[in-house]
Amino acid sequence: MLQHLRIVLVATSHPGNIGAAARAMKTMGLRRLYLVAPKEYPSAVASARASGATDILDAATLCPDLPSALAGCHWVIGCSARERSLAKPSQSARSHAADCLAHIYNDQWQIAVVFGNEQSGLSNSELDLCHALLHIPSNKEYSSLNLAAAVQLVSYELFCAYHEYRQPEPAPVKKAPLDQACEHQQLQDLFAAQQQLLNDIGFLGSSNPEILLRRLQNLLYRAQPSQREVNILRGILSAIAQNLSAKK
Amino acid sequence: MLQHLRIVLVATSHPGNIGAAARAMKTMGLRRLYLVAPKEYPSAVASARASGATDILDAATLCPDLPSALAGCHWVIGCSARERSLAKPSQSARSHAADCLAHIYNDQWQIAVVFGNEQSGLSNSELDLCHALLHIPSNKEYSSLNLAAAVQLVSYELFCAYHEYRQPEPAPVKKAPLDQACEHQQLQDLFAAQQQLLNDIGFLGSSNPEILLRRLQNLLYRAQPSQREVNILRGILSAIAQNLSAKK
Repeated sequence: MLQHLRIVLVATSHPGNIGAAARAMKTMGLRRLYLVAPKEYPSAVASARASGATDILDAATLCPDLPSALAGCHWVIGCSARERSLAKPSQSARSHAADCLAHIYNDQWQIAVVFGNEQSGLSNSELDLCHALLHIPSNKEYSSLNLAAAVQLVSYELFCAYHEYRQPEPAPVKKAPLDQACEHQQLQDLFAAQQQLLNDIGFLGSSNPEILLRRLQNLLYRAQPSQREVNILRGILSAIAQNLSAKK
Repeated sequence: MLQHLRIVLVATSHPGNIGAAARAMKTMGLRRLYLVAPKEYPSAVASARASGATDILDAATLCPDLPSALAGCHWVIGCSARERSLAKPSQSARSHAADCLAHIYNDQWQIAVVFGNEQSGLSNSELDLCHALLHIPSNKEYSSLNLAAAVQLVSYELFCAYHEYRQPEPAPVKKAPLDQACEHQQLQDLFAAQQQLLNDIGFLGSSNPEILLRRLQNLLYRAQPSQREVNILRGILSAIAQNLSAKK
C-alpha cells in the first residue's frame, strides 16, 4: 500500500537534504522519491547523508517541473507551514495520513505529498496544483522545520496510519510461561511469606502494621510481577530467613 | 508543561546531530537539552545546523555522565531501536508521550528522554538507569533513523500530546509529598542498598547476579514507587541488616 505514495521535493537547494529525506523515507517504508529541478543533483553530499538509503536515491525520478512529477496521481497534498489566504482545505499530517491510507485502501489512489524549496516553500502556482494542504503541528514561535525533518514526520505519520490499517488485531506478545503474570494465589503466598519475615525482624511492631502491609501489597500489585519475579522474591525471603536462623 | 521534559543526548559523535536535535526540539517547543560527554562540542558545525535554535545550544547543560544529567528526574525513558530480552516495558513514542503529559499534569514529574550514541545506541549500564523504553515505529528492514530525526519524532509526539492535554483540563489529583513519585536517585540508592543485602546473605553467588539485579530493578521501575514506599523498603532493608549483624 505504501507503494501508492510518492514524496515530491521541488527545487531543493541543499543536496544534503535530499539524501536525508531519502533516509527518512526508507526508515518508514516509503520508496518512491521524485525530484523536481533540484539545484545540485546528483551529489556526493546527498549520497553520504542518505546513509543506507542510496537505493532510494538511485531509483528517484528526476523531473523538469511539478506537473510531470504528478503524472498518474489521484490526490496531491502540498506541505505548507504558512497559513494561506486561499480557501484550500488544510489538515494536520496525522489527519491526512489516515485519509491517504483510507483512499489507497478503498480507492487504489496514487497520492503525492509535495515539499517546496527550503527557503520559500511552495509557490502559489505550485500550490495551485495541490488538492489539499498539509501542516505539521509545531511551535508557533519557531516553526522552522528542516526539510528532511518535515519529510521524516510526514513519512512517519503515513507509516503509523499504514500499520493501523494493516493490523486491526495487534499480535499478542508471546512470553515464556515464567515471564507471564503470576497467578493471584502466588502473590498471596508471597505476601504471607513477606509478612512472616517482617514479623520475625520486629518490623511490624509499629502502630499500624496493617496499613504498612497494604502499602507493600499495593506496590507489588502495581508492578504485576511475573512468575519468575515472584520466584526470585520468594528465594530472597527464604535466604534472609535462613541467614537469620543460622545466626541464632 | 513542556518545561518538565528534558532531552538527554549521550556520547553523541557528530556535532551536526547535536545542532539538528536542538532545532528539532525548538520546533516542538522543547527547550531543555542535556549533553552527556559529547565527542566534539562546542562546535561551529553544531551551531550551523541548529539554524535559529542556537539559544537551545547556548542553554544546554553539559554533563560528565548520565546520572548527573538525570538529577531531579522522576521518570527516565530510554530511546532504543533494538528489542531487549529483559522485562523492561517498551512503548511506542506516541503512547509514551501521552503518559508523559499525564504524569507532568497530574504528578508534576520531571521526565528525561535519553538518546544513545549514533552507532551503538544506549549501553546496558545506561539502560539500567532507564525506567522504561521507548521505540519509534519504523520499517523493520531499515530502521536506521538518524539521531536528530529520532529526536524530531519524539519531540513531535510530545508536542502533539501536550496540545491534546491543553484543551480539556481534567482536575489534577492532589497528592501528599510523600505519596508523590520518588526521584530517580532515591531509586538508585535503594538498588544499592538492596544489592548490599543480597550480597551479605550470599544470594548473589549464582551464575548471573547482574541479570538477577536487573530483574529486581525492572520490577521496581514498573511499580514507580512513591517516596513513602521507598522509605518503607529502605527501612525494611535496614531492619534486616540490623537483625543479621545483631546475631553475629
